[in-house]
Amino acid sequence: MHIIWNQYPEIKEELLEIIKLMDENAKCKDKVIEQSIKDLIHANGKMIRPAFTVLAAHFGEYEPEKVRALASVVELFHMATLVHDDVIDDANLRRGVPTIQAKYGKEYAVYIGDYLFCICFKILASTASLQSIQVDSLSMSRICLGEVEQLNSRFNTEVSVKNYLKRIAGKTAELFSLSLYIGAAESGCSDKLTKSFWRIGHHIGMAFQIIDDILDYTGCEKSVGKDHAKDIQEGVFNLPLIYALEKQPKDLLALLEKHPYSDTDLKEIVQLVDTYGGIDRARRLAHQYTQKAYKHINKLPDNEYKMILLEVAHKLLDRAY
Amino acid sequence: MHIIWNQYPEIKEELLEIIKLMDENAKCKDKVIEQSIKDLIHANGKMIRPAFTVLAAHFGEYEPEKVRALASVVELFHMATLVHDDVIDDANLRRGVPTIQAKYGKEYAVYIGDYLFCICFKILASTASLQSIQVDSLSMSRICLGEVEQLNSRFNTEVSVKNYLKRIAGKTAELFSLSLYIGAAESGCSDKLTKSFWRIGHHIGMAFQIIDDILDYTGCEKSVGKDHAKDIQEGVFNLPLIYALEKQPKDLLALLEKHPYSDTDLKEIVQLVDTYGGIDRARRLAHQYTQKAYKHINKLPDNEYKMILLEVAHKLLDRAY
Repeated sequence: MHIIWNQYPEIKEELLEIIKLMDENAKCKDKVIEQSIKDLIHANGKMIRPAFTVLAAHFGEYEPEKVRALASVVELFHMATLVHDDVIDDANLRRGVPTIQAKYGKEYAVYIGDYLFCICFKILASTASLQSIQVDSLSMSRICLGEVEQLNSRFNTEVSVKNYLKRIAGKTAELFSLSLYIGAAESGCSDKLTKSFWRIGHHIGMAFQIIDDILDYTGCEKSVGKDHAKDIQEGVFNLPLIYALEKQPKDLLALLEKHPYSDTDLKEIVQLVDTYGGIDRARRLAHQYTQKAYKHINKLPDNEYKMILLEVAHKLLDRAY
Repeated sequence: MHIIWNQYPEIKEELLEIIKLMDENAKCKDKVIEQSIKDLIHANGKMIRPAFTVLAAHFGEYEPEKVRALASVVELFHMATLVHDDVIDDANLRRGVPTIQAKYGKEYAVYIGDYLFCICFKILASTASLQSIQVDSLSMSRICLGEVEQLNSRFNTEVSVKNYLKRIAGKTAELFSLSLYIGAAESGCSDKLTKSFWRIGHHIGMAFQIIDDILDYTGCEKSVGKDHAKDIQEGVFNLPLIYALEKQPKDLLALLEKHPYSDTDLKEIVQLVDTYGGIDRARRLAHQYTQKAYKHINKLPDNEYKMILLEVAHKLLDRAY
């Protein structure tokens, strides 16, 4: 279990129950499949999304079994998308451990991802209301669309800020929203409160992804656990670069045209993005989303879970970036 | 619309409505995504699975809108698995037209498949009962497992008949069963009748896949629409080969060890499989499943849809193989 939860024993205990439930749902006659899913479950992810479901559910009538099932769905869905992302990105490491595809091959990773999707709906159908399954599947389809949009805009030097925001709203913020929403909705919270959780998830998710993307420019391998400037190499042009491109800088445009980029190219691109103010502007937008998230969390009814949500949001969003 | 339905105008009309519904569900702000899904919908597939749902539903209280939605789900799910199969197989053609991945790349195909999965559950949640969604998701997860099992047994010369049957039960028969089952179950058929449809789907599916696999040995590119002996090249050892291997033939084993196979190797493998009686034995097993399917269909309550089901089964299973 990630250290982030050590100071919230109640949430930590619940997350351990959720891991147990995911392990149970990973059970399969084929032991290789079972083990590869368990490896994912125990890869020490932060479990932010299921924690969000748990926290939001505490604002209504908390039914432990139901909440755990719903929380396991958002985490398993997240895992499914990660497995497929790694296929696309040709990634060998995820959370510091070899990816499914590095261990078992791409083909295997495609089907394991599909299998995880099906498990999600199996759990949902035995737990959630039809309305929640509808919201879930619609939301999940938007997440897939976000991924497709990211693909379609690769190496496009004319990609707009609007397009970028739409893309990350789909691929990241949507699942944060869903995690909070489903916890609240299935625990009988009012429509108003449920919608408010959806917005909080959106703002946290947007800030989180922008920060993550900034770290691609400012981070090093150690602190973010992935290769420096990897997104640029793959043609995924993120906010700092898009802002820099708005100034139509001939040197940067010329560099971007000659992909695949050498290490020197990448360093130079990052340097130019910084020079053209892209990183600073991106930081300001991340800050705006972060502030909006805090504002909306502060408006929630007062209880201990609100404080935890606020603190966790701080931990997620006040990283050095 | 495939010519197979020309002599059943009522079913054909219903299938056209189902295509319309799939088109509606393919609607998407991103027009490239929408078009690529519509290309799949209009690729002139046989629409066997949705037709099965329609036929089975006629044994109960037929609710057109509900049945169409359920039928579109089984076809869209089938498409999702095909899109991902093509990613795995590196296939460029499907039903004679370029595959999604040939047109838009593998990455795109992975996410479009995921998106189709989500659409399936979105439609299900707005149409079916929770119980049917449970059956569906469980069934879909077994289909994915069948695919994984196929991968895990590639190039394994010790693969058993039992393993093969389990694999095709998952990857093919399961969806035939589900298509019939969901039509019957959601139209209020009795448990006994619903189970009977499940079995019919199983037997048709098993016979269908064994025949398809035999065609990999006996067919030519034109008649099956895919490369001759393609499965062998990919290390997917099917029933005729497995039967031949049971005789522990040193010449065949030696050939199988030296993959990738040349065209001459492939011809020789096919020849040896025939010599060792693999094709004949596979034909006999296909025949047994076919007969079981007919027997169970004959036991259904008498009506015009029973006759159509029987005729369609004949068309599917009495191919030259």
